[in-house]
Amino acid sequence: MNQLTGACIIGQSGGPTAVINASAQGVIQTALKAECITRVLGAAHGIKGVLDDKLYDMSQEDPNELSLLKYTPSSALGSCRYKLADPDVDDTDYKRILEIFKKYNVRYFFYNGGNDSMDTCNKISKYMQKMNYECRVMGVPKTIDNDLNGTDHCPGFASAAKYIATSCAEVWQDAHVYDTGMITVVEIMGRHAGWLAGSAALASLTGCGPDLVYLPEVDFDMDRFLADVKAIYAKTGKCMVAVSEGIHYADGTFVSEAKTSATDGFGHAQLGGLAAMLADVIKKETGAKVRGIELSLLQRCGSHVASKTDIEEAWQAGATAVEAAVSGTTDKMVAFECSRDNGYKCEMVLEPLDIVANFEKKVPREWINEAGNGMEQPFLDYALPLIQGEADGPKENSLPRFARLNKVLTTEL
Amino acid sequence: MNQLTGACIIGQSGGPTAVINASAQGVIQTALKAECITRVLGAAHGIKGVLDDKLYDMSQEDPNELSLLKYTPSSALGSCRYKLADPDVDDTDYKRILEIFKKYNVRYFFYNGGNDSMDTCNKISKYMQKMNYECRVMGVPKTIDNDLNGTDHCPGFASAAKYIATSCAEVWQDAHVYDTGMITVVEIMGRHAGWLAGSAALASLTGCGPDLVYLPEVDFDMDRFLADVKAIYAKTGKCMVAVSEGIHYADGTFVSEAKTSATDGFGHAQLGGLAAMLADVIKKETGAKVRGIELSLLQRCGSHVASKTDIEEAWQAGATAVEAAVSGTTDKMVAFECSRDNGYKCEMVLEPLDIVANFEKKVPREWINEAGNGMEQPFLDYALPLIQGEADGPKENSLPRFARLNKVLTTEL
Repeated sequence: MNQLTGACIIGQSGGPTAVINASAQGVIQTALKAECITRVLGAAHGIKGVLDDKLYDMSQEDPNELSLLKYTPSSALGSCRYKLADPDVDDTDYKRILEIFKKYNVRYFFYNGGNDSMDTCNKISKYMQKMNYECRVMGVPKTIDNDLNGTDHCPGFASAAKYIATSCAEVWQDAHVYDTGMITVVEIMGRHAGWLAGSAALASLTGCGPDLVYLPEVDFDMDRFLADVKAIYAKTGKCMVAVSEGIHYADGTFVSEAKTSATDGFGHAQLGGLAAMLADVIKKETGAKVRGIELSLLQRCGSHVASKTDIEEAWQAGATAVEAAVSGTTDKMVAFECSRDNGYKCEMVLEPLDIVANFEKKVPREWINEAGNGMEQPFLDYALPLIQGEADGPKENSLPRFARLNKVLTTEL
Repeated sequence: MNQLTGACIIGQSGGPTAVINASAQGVIQTALKAECITRVLGAAHGIKGVLDDKLYDMSQEDPNELSLLKYTPSSALGSCRYKLADPDVDDTDYKRILEIFKKYNVRYFFYNGGNDSMDTCNKISKYMQKMNYECRVMGVPKTIDNDLNGTDHCPGFASAAKYIATSCAEVWQDAHVYDTGMITVVEIMGRHAGWLAGSAALASLTGCGPDLVYLPEVDFDMDRFLADVKAIYAKTGKCMVAVSEGIHYADGTFVSEAKTSATDGFGHAQLGGLAAMLADVIKKETGAKVRGIELSLLQRCGSHVASKTDIEEAWQAGATAVEAAVSGTTDKMVAFECSRDNGYKCEMVLEPLDIVANFEKKVPREWINEAGNGMEQPFLDYALPLIQGEADGPKENSLPRFARLNKVLTTEL
């Protein structure tokens, strides 16, 4: 084993989740204990904090507050959506990163994020190797979208899925209360993969789930959709629909596209307003009372109903990244290898960064019913073990007690 | 005491809440034990179930399922928004109600609802007295809007308030994650009273609350609103706003009015889409990234984050209604008399139905700050004790286990 002594940086990137801070906690707590790690630095707003030389000294934090990170949603260190250039085209950022790494003798870099973040990791690592600067770079996955390749699932997905299933079960109760007709459309996040929208079907296990579920994995057809809704409404006087924000027509255009043309920092179209739009269309077609509900940010920050399994796995992913790096590993993302045959088991494994970068894992077509409007048993068998266990975060005044970090900027070298 | 022997009917009316079934459970469990109550009948969809002769025999329910009502949101017996005519103008419905009461020898009528439901109670009771039919009529309050006169607060309000405060604290975390500008507008229910929107300010006790709160109690001024938002955004690069769906201009028109013209069964305008509309206006004015979030039905059926205090009080309100009626009381609504000086205490009292009918209790102006964009300490002192304690409902597969009623229709006389 090649002993490497120096500071480490932990950064968080991309959209927040209910448990990304549990991963940060896993990294920070494990790194603070590692002998060869001389200093644990938290990057303010991911890679931007490195570029801006804004690094927090995590040893200045109260350990009790650090322990609350497990139950604090969103990215406590701050996040970013900053895409590094191709270093062969423009290496300005990379030179700056190397400069900062040298300044603080950073020898470990842990980056906690989704597809784009693993790409960032990969590029930084390649550049450091090219410049002969020894630094171990590890990716810690997170994304509610669950679309990372090379891992059974991603930390953050299960807690969002649990929020969605719980909320859908509750909304079902509400939407079935009158003896008059009622159609409900629930809009769920997921740009290109339908893992989250599919999770609405977990609510059916409570006896109160959506009648129809639409994922981006199946081309959307408005006429067929309206026929589906009308058929159920005609039969029961009610209809509850779960739709992914990313549903699109056969030609690839998003169903929601007419609503907004804003894009985020990675050039992705920013979606939303789909539920209201579909509710309008259904209302015009059926004359029924229709309500569109967009779960919006609520679904990705709902830590009060997070999955304990998710929290623990997220923590373990962070801890494993540090342990592996200290043992000599670099250029890997921590991934989950799971079996569900004799009870659920989840093992931490390491995957090469470039396998997971820039590839979006979709829901297998055979886990969606043939009509493309509902989920099959294998999807439920896949997702159900992930949402088990309740978040038991501390409360004050019966409201969540989130971590309050000091965020002391490092000044010394 | 005047002993009166016969059947009882329990009905639920108006918009559901997270704890209206706890009140129904209080009524049903207490009535099933009362010797002078020969049969406990649940009206399908409130007063409509009486008119339609659709009454469930509650003794046919599994006691274990009945015990789950405490944790089951929405109205398990079904609800309605049916307004009885003035009996002097049209007594058709009243004749029918009397017919059904006679058919099953109904001598106790418990109605669980808001303002309109107390009005229904009151009219039925007056009619029965006029017709010399002895029947004890009791109102059990519920409304997330908390606008019933004659009671410190209404069952259902606190659980919605807790959902709102918890969600706002979580959304705050999410909305403060990037180092780029972000404005968030959260739309909260409350047609004419701002109790729920005001509850968003409880999130501030976690350190993460809205910067601005707008209630229907203060006339809305779009220019002042935009100036408020811009000032905070200019200073911090972020701004989180909580608005009541019922905010209106000085001339009384709802700010959201342009968005929809649908009305519900009581002739109320059906609001919604305000968050999206305000987000649009702010975006155009500031160029900032703005997200509108409508808490929609989620806030009134979020039983997974219900207040234990609310659940227990809701149950007690139902039980008290039965106990009082059995003891000879009629024409009353169960109300709460609370003191907060040496710890929170809540006592069940009885108020005349006609005091509470058709009057909407507003948030006192002095509990709102002078600028009309935030809450004062007395509001927080009022609301905080109500949200205490966690719902500890049973789960199956880590998802809520709601009550499953048999709903056996009564056929025998």
